[in-house]
Amino acid sequence: MDTSDLSGWTRGSRPDHLFRRFVFDSYAQTRRFLDDMQAVCDACGVTPQNVNFGTTYVNVTISAEGDSLSPADWEAARRIDALVRPASEATQP
Amino acid sequence: MDTSDLSGWTRGSRPDHLFRRFVFDSYAQTRRFLDDMQAVCDACGVTPQNVNFGTTYVNVTISAEGDSLSPADWEAARRIDALVRPASEATQP
Repeated sequence: MDTSDLSGWTRGSRPDHLFRRFVFDSYAQTRRFLDDMQAVCDACGVTPQNVNFGTTYVNVTISAEGDSLSPADWEAARRIDALVRPASEATQP
Repeated sequence: MDTSDLSGWTRGSRPDHLFRRFVFDSYAQTRRFLDDMQAVCDACGVTPQNVNFGTTYVNVTISAEGDSLSPADWEAARRIDALVRPASEATQP
């Protein structure tokens, strides 16, 4: 599975998971992203286990339900990335 | 200001804030609560600074923008409570 285009995400373990922080210019943008992300997760059949957001940021963690991330988890991460790609990409702190 | 009816919330400082954990039976309930909570915050003119959610829980922090919580912050907490009052109330762990 080609995961090279998911460079913005950090991979972790116990459980296997992907993490990324998205930063926005306004609360309205944050809300729109949250709604769009929910739609992506619904479409991929992935339930975000741990999402943390404030006025202008969203921390997304996609955790494996089994031993390792599923193709659906990777696809959800890819589609979530696509939600922000045209906008200024958030860089990890 | 009578805050006795906000017993489910934990008060903290630096900054002055209220915290409460809400637990749900399903992701659908969690999503409905998130949407309803956003509507309450909009109506009160309060922007949640730090919300953390997973499949069946939402941790809500309402932080003071100034030195102390405003009447709108307290009202938002009260209305958020009302969203879950008929359901089984989440108890702090």
